[in-house]
Amino acid sequence: MSTLAKVMSKFRLAVVQLQVSSVKADNLSRARRLVREAAGQGSKVVTMSQRGISAVQTFCFQEVANQKKGEERRWSQAEDGLMGSIPEEDGGKLYNTCTVFGSDGEMILKHRKIHLFDIDVPGKIRFQESETLSPGNSLSLFDTPFCKVGVGICYDIRFAELAQLYSRKGCQLLVYPGAFNMTTGPAHWELLQRGRALDNQVYVATASPARDEAASYVAWENKGVIRRLKFSEGQLEYLADIRQQIPITSQRRDDLYAVTSVQEGSS
Amino acid sequence: MSTLAKVMSKFRLAVVQLQVSSVKADNLSRARRLVREAAGQGSKVVTMSQRGISAVQTFCFQEVANQKKGEERRWSQAEDGLMGSIPEEDGGKLYNTCTVFGSDGEMILKHRKIHLFDIDVPGKIRFQESETLSPGNSLSLFDTPFCKVGVGICYDIRFAELAQLYSRKGCQLLVYPGAFNMTTGPAHWELLQRGRALDNQVYVATASPARDEAASYVAWENKGVIRRLKFSEGQLEYLADIRQQIPITSQRRDDLYAVTSVQEGSS
Repeated sequence: MSTLAKVMSKFRLAVVQLQVSSVKADNLSRARRLVREAAGQGSKVVTMSQRGISAVQTFCFQEVANQKKGEERRWSQAEDGLMGSIPEEDGGKLYNTCTVFGSDGEMILKHRKIHLFDIDVPGKIRFQESETLSPGNSLSLFDTPFCKVGVGICYDIRFAELAQLYSRKGCQLLVYPGAFNMTTGPAHWELLQRGRALDNQVYVATASPARDEAASYVAWENKGVIRRLKFSEGQLEYLADIRQQIPITSQRRDDLYAVTSVQEGSS
Repeated sequence: MSTLAKVMSKFRLAVVQLQVSSVKADNLSRARRLVREAAGQGSKVVTMSQRGISAVQTFCFQEVANQKKGEERRWSQAEDGLMGSIPEEDGGKLYNTCTVFGSDGEMILKHRKIHLFDIDVPGKIRFQESETLSPGNSLSLFDTPFCKVGVGICYDIRFAELAQLYSRKGCQLLVYPGAFNMTTGPAHWELLQRGRALDNQVYVATASPARDEAASYVAWENKGVIRRLKFSEGQLEYLADIRQQIPITSQRRDDLYAVTSVQEGSS
């Protein structure tokens, strides 16, 4: 393996879990500071959480896109992906959309949430996202110098097939901006992440808003600790080792079963 | 729902985790006692572990089958399924086979392990089941008065597709006799079970041999506690509630992806 390939087989991913206040400028300022800090510490991918708390990310991204030149244009300094989900309007429909921006401020990808969050746990939580939003109809993956990345949003993580298809298409990192709640969060959020990683032998990263007990929708931040910024190290040689040691990827019985795309994503 | 249907929507499953000694008659005697105890406490399904320690189950099952009449014929008293995996020879080939016996001592089903355990974790464990065994080529599921049951053996649990297909074919209980080791056991055994249950909204039961630190192959008994007999209660109305509350089964995007049998099982 060449030196270049070795370098590219490692990457740092940062998860920004913002506690969003009602002061937009304050949110924006803190988001910028955290993303800069993440980039300054070598993060190649920075992910923020799912929509639902504020449209703060919209402004972050617009700022990136609007600053056409100079150092400020790349305030994120994230080399390959700055992502998070925001509300998107298109043709009179609303979508829950994760935008992915490159280091030049250009948008690389839009993932519209495929599986809308319609659940009803009596006495605990009822949420019908489909009352206001339309679903996306495409898988969404993008290339980086270190690996392919597959994108889902929050409830998308419950559907094993999406992760299986991303894995079959060569993704080694799956990112799910999310905002699980205080009922399903403690029950399932970590289990889903670990399960997707184990079954597909890929890295899985998720981001939630920081937990704010005073908010109307209280998000279950991972592991129940309010942290503003956390890092994960991806080591693709480690993945390769695991896949060799426990070679379920090559041991699948393709003669007995198949997981297939019915309709190829347009991304 | 009729009273009968209500009764049938509940069932008790027993997991016998035998610590196997070198004295065959002793093993057989303890196995019989535990299965009787399980049945006496209302168990409708009794599962034992994967092969690898002893052929004790072979003798249990033969005893059931050979006793043609009377109370002793039904010593297991398990109404619908007594299962566990044993070595099977057929046509000069060896299989790792889970036999399922009904309460009349008749064999209902044979599941031959589909995914052979070939792994190599340097310095930890190397195991090449394919050096001695041949793989099965069929899915295996059977009907009971309470629900359909899908069967896998140990390493089969790593392959999400098998559980997905069983679930799509209507199984509400998956049973995996197993014998994970002391490396992959603590890392993955419980996570795999919980993941299969969560993703498919089914009950998942597993059985391991009791942990015997003196054995040449030390099995990772669930949760690291040596228990000889444990019970689980299945409540199918609870499953129905869960599937209504978090309706991922009906929310799957069949227009985008599919999990399919390439070749229908002959079970």
